[in-house]
Amino acid sequence: MTQQLAIGVDLGGTTVKTGLIDTDGKILAVSKLPTRADENPNAVIEQIKKSIKEVLVYTDAKAVSGIGVASPGLIQNPGGIVKSPPNMKNWDVVPLADELSKAFGMRVEVDNDANVAAVAESKFGAGKEHPNFLFIIWGTGVGGGIIMGNQIYRGPSGGAGEVGHISVNYEGLMCNCGTRGCVEAYIGQKYLSNRTIEKLKSFPSSKILGLVGGDLNKIEPIYISKAAEAGDPLAKDILIEAGTLLGVMIGGVMNTLDFRVTVIGGGVSAVGDFVYDAIRESTMKNVQKPLRDGIKILRAKLGNDAGMLGAAGMVL
Amino acid sequence: MTQQLAIGVDLGGTTVKTGLIDTDGKILAVSKLPTRADENPNAVIEQIKKSIKEVLVYTDAKAVSGIGVASPGLIQNPGGIVKSPPNMKNWDVVPLADELSKAFGMRVEVDNDANVAAVAESKFGAGKEHPNFLFIIWGTGVGGGIIMGNQIYRGPSGGAGEVGHISVNYEGLMCNCGTRGCVEAYIGQKYLSNRTIEKLKSFPSSKILGLVGGDLNKIEPIYISKAAEAGDPLAKDILIEAGTLLGVMIGGVMNTLDFRVTVIGGGVSAVGDFVYDAIRESTMKNVQKPLRDGIKILRAKLGNDAGMLGAAGMVL
Repeated sequence: MTQQLAIGVDLGGTTVKTGLIDTDGKILAVSKLPTRADENPNAVIEQIKKSIKEVLVYTDAKAVSGIGVASPGLIQNPGGIVKSPPNMKNWDVVPLADELSKAFGMRVEVDNDANVAAVAESKFGAGKEHPNFLFIIWGTGVGGGIIMGNQIYRGPSGGAGEVGHISVNYEGLMCNCGTRGCVEAYIGQKYLSNRTIEKLKSFPSSKILGLVGGDLNKIEPIYISKAAEAGDPLAKDILIEAGTLLGVMIGGVMNTLDFRVTVIGGGVSAVGDFVYDAIRESTMKNVQKPLRDGIKILRAKLGNDAGMLGAAGMVL
Repeated sequence: MTQQLAIGVDLGGTTVKTGLIDTDGKILAVSKLPTRADENPNAVIEQIKKSIKEVLVYTDAKAVSGIGVASPGLIQNPGGIVKSPPNMKNWDVVPLADELSKAFGMRVEVDNDANVAAVAESKFGAGKEHPNFLFIIWGTGVGGGIIMGNQIYRGPSGGAGEVGHISVNYEGLMCNCGTRGCVEAYIGQKYLSNRTIEKLKSFPSSKILGLVGGDLNKIEPIYISKAAEAGDPLAKDILIEAGTLLGVMIGGVMNTLDFRVTVIGGGVSAVGDFVYDAIRESTMKNVQKPLRDGIKILRAKLGNDAGMLGAAGMVL
């Protein structure tokens, strides 16, 4: 029997979501179980194993080429070792790939959310026709994954793609990470919301306030985007500036890698097309002339299933 | 007979320098001929062929694994096509690798100076023990080459490594290339000299002036470095700032590629160790914490022969 299926595990802080996936990215079966993150690594691993067994009943194990896992925390590759995932109790260092490989006798790949989502877009989404692209998760923070020759590029120790912490201004804002001017310190969701709150003091008539019912704690990029699309000048300024700064970083990565294509996912990526126009324009300005032909800034196509799909994609 | 030799051609604006090189980077024979750059591509190609023949008499062609060429201009790879090299008359687009491959029936690789120097340092120089590193040419401009898994990484169209045009300040100085804040616009030799001249107006007692006999046109980074080492505070400030900005860019590339090592060559790289200390310190600050172990900033080891050696290294 040819191996045309893979198992994709999306390990979250509250839920383990596991899918049986075919080569077209079709989800044939899904299992959802509580992660038991507040207990210990063994409890979590048991839940992962259980969820894998639950989808395996839908096929012959011989048809399955392997197991992929999207995991929080720092992943050491090669090895698939998961270090200190946030919100998982008593979890120091766990050789997760080894544990699952022993249990199921299959190839197992483990990687972080950004890399896995990059693989998902490469195999099944917006990057399907692009062998080389930068994937960006634009959400609470700014993360990244590099697809090089249709493969995820992890770097020598598995740490590649930390593009959110590229500085776009050596004299700029201090980032949580301790570096000055990281693009994340300007455009990460929390930073963006805080700067908006700050600026609203001088623009009390902004439409943003109406959209959140006057509750500053509810300010999120998607409301800023809606206000902008309704003609609010403050909201427009904020998001165009964010897009412009993102383009500065993207331009630098394109110059380094000779890439042309960027795919953007994550919570903030739902902002309006005018933000993508700003990102594109800024990227063009920041890329060397001979590399400007074919510059593309694309929206990610896969939503909540990106974790399962990309995890499976790593072993398909 | 095993193939343990290669031919390395360093194509310059005035001289074609061609060497017969062994696997240890030993130069067994050299030919130097005028480039005839003021005539046309055919004249230049004839000179290259002649110089190759001159070194081939020292060995059996069967012992030669191929020909590498370090060329000015924009190189399109794969293909080894040379576009519009500066100072070469009537030269539009020439498939140089093809021409030489037809003439000698050997494998031919052509690449730009920065990539070739990166290969030289990888095979025979400061990067010998490092399978992954960023190579920087710090001279008139700031260029780069990426060594990934002991190979030059050229990118999909041969344009990778343009790290001198990564912006370190989106509000910063305008670079010749049209982008704002390129690191080259701060630390390239001409920019650095001009900024020094500007600052000397406020520091007429600086030792830099004595070292160039009062002639501002003679100001070069090596004199600024000498003044700094003699205790001149202005000179020290200028170069430490340059090193710091270079480190901002290097940190961003290390974050992207999960690299740890940078090798610096080019005319300005002869500056004192205190500049390297500044580069290292700034790189550390700009690299994510998990990637900080093993950060190294190394001086290139190969001087004027880097072109010949790296060119040969591409086919060894």
